[in-house]
Amino acid sequence: MINVSVIGATGYAGAEIVRLLVNHPHVNITCLTSKQYSGMNYSDVYPSMRGVVDIKCQEFEPDIIAEKSDIIFLALPHKLSMETAKSLFKYKKKIIDLSADFRFKNALTYESVYDRHLAPELLEHSTYGLSEVFFNNISKAQIIGNPGCYPTSVLLALIPLIKEKLIHSETIIIDSKSGVSGAGRELSLPTHFCEANEGFKAYKVAEHRHIPEIEEYLSDAAEKPIHVTFVPHLVPMNRGILSTIYADLTDHGRAKTIRECLLSFYESKKFVRICSESILPNTSYVKATNYCDIGFKVEARKSRLILITAIDNLVKGAAGQAIQNMNIMTGIEETTGIDNCPFSV
Amino acid sequence: MINVSVIGATGYAGAEIVRLLVNHPHVNITCLTSKQYSGMNYSDVYPSMRGVVDIKCQEFEPDIIAEKSDIIFLALPHKLSMETAKSLFKYKKKIIDLSADFRFKNALTYESVYDRHLAPELLEHSTYGLSEVFFNNISKAQIIGNPGCYPTSVLLALIPLIKEKLIHSETIIIDSKSGVSGAGRELSLPTHFCEANEGFKAYKVAEHRHIPEIEEYLSDAAEKPIHVTFVPHLVPMNRGILSTIYADLTDHGRAKTIRECLLSFYESKKFVRICSESILPNTSYVKATNYCDIGFKVEARKSRLILITAIDNLVKGAAGQAIQNMNIMTGIEETTGIDNCPFSV
Amino acid sequence: MINVSVIGATGYAGAEIVRLLVNHPHVNITCLTSKQYSGMNYSDVYPSMRGVVDIKCQEFEPDIIAEKSDIIFLALPHKLSMETAKSLFKYKKKIIDLSADFRFKNALTYESVYDRHLAPELLEHSTYGLSEVFFNNISKAQIIGNPGCYPTSVLLALIPLIKEKLIHSETIIIDSKSGVSGAGRELSLPTHFCEANEGFKAYKVAEHRHIPEIEEYLSDAAEKPIHVTFVPHLVPMNRGILSTIYADLTDHGRAKTIRECLLSFYESKKFVRICSESILPNTSYVKATNYCDIGFKVEARKSRLILITAIDNLVKGAAGQAIQNMNIMTGIEETTGIDNCPFSV
Amino acid sequence: MINVSVIGATGYAGAEIVRLLVNHPHVNITCLTSKQYSGMNYSDVYPSMRGVVDIKCQEFEPDIIAEKSDIIFLALPHKLSMETAKSLFKYKKKIIDLSADFRFKNALTYESVYDRHLAPELLEHSTYGLSEVFFNNISKAQIIGNPGCYPTSVLLALIPLIKEKLIHSETIIIDSKSGVSGAGRELSLPTHFCEANEGFKAYKVAEHRHIPEIEEYLSDAAEKPIHVTFVPHLVPMNRGILSTIYADLTDHGRAKTIRECLLSFYESKKFVRICSESILPNTSYVKATNYCDIGFKVEARKSRLILITAIDNLVKGAAGQAIQNMNIMTGIEETTGIDNCPFSV
Repeated sequence: MINVSVIGATGYAGAEIVRLLVNHPHVNITCLTSKQYSGMNYSDVYPSMRGVVDIKCQEFEPDIIAEKSDIIFLALPHKLSMETAKSLFKYKKKIIDLSADFRFKNALTYESVYDRHLAPELLEHSTYGLSEVFFNNISKAQIIGNPGCYPTSVLLALIPLIKEKLIHSETIIIDSKSGVSGAGRELSLPTHFCEANEGFKAYKVAEHRHIPEIEEYLSDAAEKPIHVTFVPHLVPMNRGILSTIYADLTDHGRAKTIRECLLSFYESKKFVRICSESILPNTSYVKATNYCDIGFKVEARKSRLILITAIDNLVKGAAGQAIQNMNIMTGIEETTGIDNCPFSV
Repeated sequence: MINVSVIGATGYAGAEIVRLLVNHPHVNITCLTSKQYSGMNYSDVYPSMRGVVDIKCQEFEPDIIAEKSDIIFLALPHKLSMETAKSLFKYKKKIIDLSADFRFKNALTYESVYDRHLAPELLEHSTYGLSEVFFNNISKAQIIGNPGCYPTSVLLALIPLIKEKLIHSETIIIDSKSGVSGAGRELSLPTHFCEANEGFKAYKVAEHRHIPEIEEYLSDAAEKPIHVTFVPHLVPMNRGILSTIYADLTDHGRAKTIRECLLSFYESKKFVRICSESILPNTSYVKATNYCDIGFKVEARKSRLILITAIDNLVKGAAGQAIQNMNIMTGIEETTGIDNCPFSV
Repeated sequence: MINVSVIGATGYAGAEIVRLLVNHPHVNITCLTSKQYSGMNYSDVYPSMRGVVDIKCQEFEPDIIAEKSDIIFLALPHKLSMETAKSLFKYKKKIIDLSADFRFKNALTYESVYDRHLAPELLEHSTYGLSEVFFNNISKAQIIGNPGCYPTSVLLALIPLIKEKLIHSETIIIDSKSGVSGAGRELSLPTHFCEANEGFKAYKVAEHRHIPEIEEYLSDAAEKPIHVTFVPHLVPMNRGILSTIYADLTDHGRAKTIRECLLSFYESKKFVRICSESILPNTSYVKATNYCDIGFKVEARKSRLILITAIDNLVKGAAGQAIQNMNIMTGIEETTGIDNCPFSV
Repeated sequence: MINVSVIGATGYAGAEIVRLLVNHPHVNITCLTSKQYSGMNYSDVYPSMRGVVDIKCQEFEPDIIAEKSDIIFLALPHKLSMETAKSLFKYKKKIIDLSADFRFKNALTYESVYDRHLAPELLEHSTYGLSEVFFNNISKAQIIGNPGCYPTSVLLALIPLIKEKLIHSETIIIDSKSGVSGAGRELSLPTHFCEANEGFKAYKVAEHRHIPEIEEYLSDAAEKPIHVTFVPHLVPMNRGILSTIYADLTDHGRAKTIRECLLSFYESKKFVRICSESILPNTSYVKATNYCDIGFKVEARKSRLILITAIDNLVKGAAGQAIQNMNIMTGIEETTGIDNCPFSV
């Protein structure tokens, strides 16, 4: 059994890690920390958990956590995450960080949209946790920078096509739509029920912090700088991200080669499903699962590719991929504990 | 491994059985039948299931089904269910019927609100599948009349109290609220998105078909006839039933005795959770789980008990309890395959 | 033209008053006050209002407000409301208060569930603003205690029946369900989108502050003390209250007499619609209107009446009734400005 | 008073026309027709309308309708619409058709995506009813081809910019998102509550019938053929369309010129609101109103314009614009009857 702690266990991402860990056959949850709710029973914070997770939330103390854990998940706001990682690093435990703090190879990129980086010396020990793409790096890393929800929904579709040069990388436009849980459990007017319900809007148009993350890994794949247009929107539902991605095809890019490229890239990867022509992704098809569904259509008259991807922002876009990474890091079969059956309704 | 078939696998109840069976460690799904979709791949009917359930839907043929199954779930409209059960009975396979056809001991009660009963001779081989209450009968029966969703949410709370004579049985008023999936996948104007969304209404006021089912098992517990007032309502959400139940307390009925009675009755029963005073049931706490949460409040100045129960109508109210019954019938640990962790969001 | 100010114009009730005043042909909005947003343009607080209400929100200053207003709406939290009313009273302007501060004749009743009453001397100048029932008092009062949303949905149905002694007043049970806007615009975890969406729960079971308000006016009608059981629930939708009310019929109470009593009581009242037998109230039928729909069913075998009422909590349950009261107080036709056509979808 | 009939009054678009006509001060509703519900009272089809619209639905008979109407709205499926218009034309009454049948100048364009055109001889008497853009034509036409919902949300933003050559017309990508009422009241699996709720998907990717309509009027404005990429999506809410439109700027296109162009084009047009920089459109800001909100952002590093528009698909995208056109055709102030105040919640 793997001993696991979750630091910041009472936000939505942390709680989703807890949920999935409970379902994981090889895991023993040892510590759950919470600043806001320390001292309270976890099931008083989340009454759905009565009789299931009756652990008491505690304050974060690095030596106690390190002693009791083989794997430590950080589900904290950025900045606090790297401080926490720093305090844990010396204990040589594996850390999976869901914030943005370890997603960038270069601290400067991080600092261009977030804060000053407080632990640049740890970056060489960390790797980007896009599970299907960076499996080998993940299996050897001590720290995982777990990908953002939007980047996951975008990169899984684009990286294979960019590597094969099937699309003109300067023409990429990404129109993403996210359920409200992406904004977390912290109270705010835009996520107040009556403000979000029965409405639809764009936000942070072409200035969302996930843009550099998307660009970093697309540029890597292209071996040249790529700039994308990215517009996120808020959907009145709890879970799910659908990204509609537009790009002009190169001469090699045709429906057949697109499909072959994607099928081949994800051949042995259970969690990425390439949709047949007759099916388009829908966030409800992947709700509460670790799947990323990818569909596409070629608009022949304009030589334009339209890619559509769907994930559950809390699972493949956060906690599920984090556990997938834990599985990879510990040598367990990648799908363990996160291969539950999708919902029909 | 238990070989299992689902007859009527493409309605919401059938699809939920399929979902839970996929998660069940001791089950092998052998046949899925569907009148409407026979010949189609199950994952073309429910695209969420691609790569998970790629079985072809077939027509129902009793000998083939019987040959390939140890357990047969019927997720059919009433009437068709008993015809199907009749055609399968001779093969001596265990049948779990989710319709109303085998819920009543007396065919006349059934006929008072449904149709003429076409298989009264099977009633002596069947038992009512309220798992926590009728465990022993279930473990020995060949046919299970799986309880209705509303009755499950009502009976689990009331039967213990009535047995202990803690409430005046003639004063029971049940105000239930159900998510829209309770109405099934068949198209209708009231379940058209724009008609159900952002609205709330009562329906079938004091004339719902679940009333005799509720009354039958309450009367049994009381050893005298009980009549209840029952009003169901439609909530703009997919899943969940919350029942608010009002009854006058007898002299023995006090907060303490109510709690003791419920705790004692469900002492070893994992799926019934008696809420502490500080927590009230919420359908979201039991979403996609087999739990029934029961909370209550005594209104002292009126000597009135207010019970509140929450279940997921498709799980504890249908497919989950059906699989719980399968576990009981096959001697497997009762919670197997349906003990997934609840959601936080 | 009537000059009107709204004190506390940026909460949901205040904003709904503003919306309806804009549609009112005889009103001139002179001042909108807001503590939180003073100095901001109203349409920056509510961007839906750009080009429609471009008034600057101001701090409350009694003499300025009094000078510029014939009618003053108070859409404030209780306590702050009576302080504000006190500061305005001497100017002899008509005040319509949407808080609980002027709903009770007797300050002691108020103090039993709210705070110490700070302006008991004003109570003799105030009256309860249930428009259809207290038309005459309203037309002469200087201060209106505008009814609560739940009480409105309950009293309109029960007062006529209690006056006619058609129900046993000691048997009343009220099961109410409200959309989330009833909780206001202030942030809270239960009204955070992901917490309220796709869930249903009861709250403040038998201890909601609206109970004494309901009991006060039922007792008045009965000319004896009445105690009710009242359980409110939260529905995942923006607007609407549906109340399901149970009571035992007296010997006079039969379907026919119930209908006749209600029809006769509301004969000339446009906003109360008694449903025919074939129709049950639905909150979506009254959305954004000032209607109160009342339907009912007699359960003969138990001599029990089941009343169902539907209102829009922000309109008939708050701002709409407030404007109806303004119309009555100013001698305008009662329905002016609030007789917009209901929605079909 | 204008005598008005609505042919096909019981679908969502027809019902929205009825709702707005009731609120219109200069209109007398004379006939409502419905194939499905003829003989029934309108308020039995839409119980929200009890006491408001108690007209009996009738079969369509051209001579009766013509005799009783000055203006006739057709809210019918395409094809049936042109047959109906044909039968009414000789009576010289003004016709406002909400189907696609009179939206194209050239029958061949229509036939490329719809059916064979059955009344090409009427096309010279018809004009496209995009009210703000084609005011003069509308004021003189006998037949109005009322714009589609998606085209309205797209054309109002793009036509001014294309006329001024501020964007490269070959780079236009339109990513639209619609509420479910856009699919009408006819039952279908994708609009079944549980299938649409809590999910988000694209549909008819780059093959929606509104594409030729968008391209026709953009090409007109550009005086050269324009092809666009258009992808519609379904949002789990009742009303609203948000379109996010991407296009590369020409050398003239800068934030300042974009704003000036839009402000100047819509200077005297109340229903088109150009958002200031600090505000982004949201469908909830225009719910149940005839507004079209237009916001935008220039992404300088890519010389790309991102336009965002929001309308209510049933109002500005259908019934509201139809009534705006009626006002224009009859010489009434354009905003009459459709200038209700927007909602705050």
